[in-house]
Amino acid sequence: MVNRFIIAVDLGGTNLKVALLDLKYRIKDKKVLSTKRLIKKEALILAIIDSINKTLENNRLNKANILGVGLGLPGPIDTERGIVHFFPNIPGWKEVNLKSILEKKLKLPVFLDNDANMMSLAEYKLGAAQGSKYSVCLTLGTGVGGGIVIADGLYRGASNAGGEIGHIPINERGPICNCGGRACLETYIGNNRILREAKRVFKRDISLEELSRLAKGKNRQALGIWLEVGRRLGIALVGVVNLLNPDCIVIGGGVANAGKMLFDKVREVISKQAMSVQARRVKVVKAKLGNDAGLIGAAIFVRESLLKK
Amino acid sequence: MVNRFIIAVDLGGTNLKVALLDLKYRIKDKKVLSTKRLIKKEALILAIIDSINKTLENNRLNKANILGVGLGLPGPIDTERGIVHFFPNIPGWKEVNLKSILEKKLKLPVFLDNDANMMSLAEYKLGAAQGSKYSVCLTLGTGVGGGIVIADGLYRGASNAGGEIGHIPINERGPICNCGGRACLETYIGNNRILREAKRVFKRDISLEELSRLAKGKNRQALGIWLEVGRRLGIALVGVVNLLNPDCIVIGGGVANAGKMLFDKVREVISKQAMSVQARRVKVVKAKLGNDAGLIGAAIFVRESLLKK
Repeated sequence: MVNRFIIAVDLGGTNLKVALLDLKYRIKDKKVLSTKRLIKKEALILAIIDSINKTLENNRLNKANILGVGLGLPGPIDTERGIVHFFPNIPGWKEVNLKSILEKKLKLPVFLDNDANMMSLAEYKLGAAQGSKYSVCLTLGTGVGGGIVIADGLYRGASNAGGEIGHIPINERGPICNCGGRACLETYIGNNRILREAKRVFKRDISLEELSRLAKGKNRQALGIWLEVGRRLGIALVGVVNLLNPDCIVIGGGVANAGKMLFDKVREVISKQAMSVQARRVKVVKAKLGNDAGLIGAAIFVRESLLKK
Repeated sequence: MVNRFIIAVDLGGTNLKVALLDLKYRIKDKKVLSTKRLIKKEALILAIIDSINKTLENNRLNKANILGVGLGLPGPIDTERGIVHFFPNIPGWKEVNLKSILEKKLKLPVFLDNDANMMSLAEYKLGAAQGSKYSVCLTLGTGVGGGIVIADGLYRGASNAGGEIGHIPINERGPICNCGGRACLETYIGNNRILREAKRVFKRDISLEELSRLAKGKNRQALGIWLEVGRRLGIALVGVVNLLNPDCIVIGGGVANAGKMLFDKVREVISKQAMSVQARRVKVVKAKLGNDAGLIGAAIFVRESLLKK
């Protein structure tokens, strides 16, 4: 068999990652590009194509060796038709048929999906949600993304936009969210909100890493900030647990590195406030695959999409 | 074929309904019993058995004519094993193997599920959610029940306790709920809460029917109460829409009779606050099958369960 590799792309608000994976989803090569100068849609698309071609070159591979290309993208995607609806944090993208653009240029099969979906798929197949039948996966960063895996497949919803745990309102009234909503979970526990709160409390700029270190060292103010994050995340998850009755909730992303106190608080809120049958059934665990989850998920997605054909 | 009928049972907090349906799910006979005097678990079980036997007798049928018995029950059910976990509003039931008890007495196949699941199944197969692929169904009464139907089947969750839309928190802090949670949707829009609010505003006891009549006649205070109900229901549904990306939300139960103003408010909140891709995709419609939805769903459930075997 000549097709021994898959190309995976993970596009974020600040970085573009392109990787080569083998069929056991091991990363054989990876390059990370800043997207800072790639402001125009066309420049970003060219950078994706260029990175893929360079990856092939550097590894002395040709297209016959590649099963396909999978992309995890930061916004709602029509995965069947391969269309990007828009990116909340990258301007200039509106109903872009990226699959068809890339397939024409690359002459390879291309598959797109939301980045949180890719991460959820990876954690389900190879990470913290292995063996689960109803798993929910969150990624805590600038935004709060989410995905749902049910009975061996991604839950998509009517327009493949399901899983947006970050946009569950946790109050009737509250801050306006980038999504147009109000009091969404993301407005309370997105990175920027945590950093702003930390600056207010400590009266200086402070990174998430330092805030975690301080909390682990029992600094009461830092601990207080993380416990509030955990409490609010817990309240949104009470709704998810009562509605979806999952057996596993995986939490990843930078904020998840805050540590045990965050997870303990989330578990406490779920155990106190969710319905007993559902609360007893669910475990809350940390993501296992780290920053590569999106790439691994994109590779799995390529393989599974081709198998279905 | 001798098995031309199905027996359906719908147990609520105040009534026990037992019906005979044909294989087109038309109700051929129905009896409604008050459960007021049936306080003990044993008395209630005997009343169910007795009503079923009388229904057979009155219709000159014997057990060979009956495909099976389906029960819609007001609480979390282990439907695979046929066990009632408990009933939030009927004391004395805890991990009761009702399927096995009834099958021994009736010598007929028995299938149990949550009443909101039965209603959701009925609205999906024969009611307002026909043709939908991702439908969510709510029943607004003393409690706020819900069910999810995805890709032709009930969404169950890891312990068949999914779908509890009434127990999504809509605030971080708020009234304690019967479920043990806080600020659940049900604590704001359950019948009792609406009646209490109406009494406070009108300074007298007032029924839901009168409150609807007054609102339809443009009484500002009555209208205000219903718009608040719609607003809060809308906020919980913003979370559901963002998370599940359904194509159809069916709202039934007594409170749904408040009329167009309630539905318009719910639609307005979803269209303003939910994410655009999801909000555009979903329609919010009134349940079609009325009070018989639970019975019809229970009959459908019997037939589908037997077909799977």
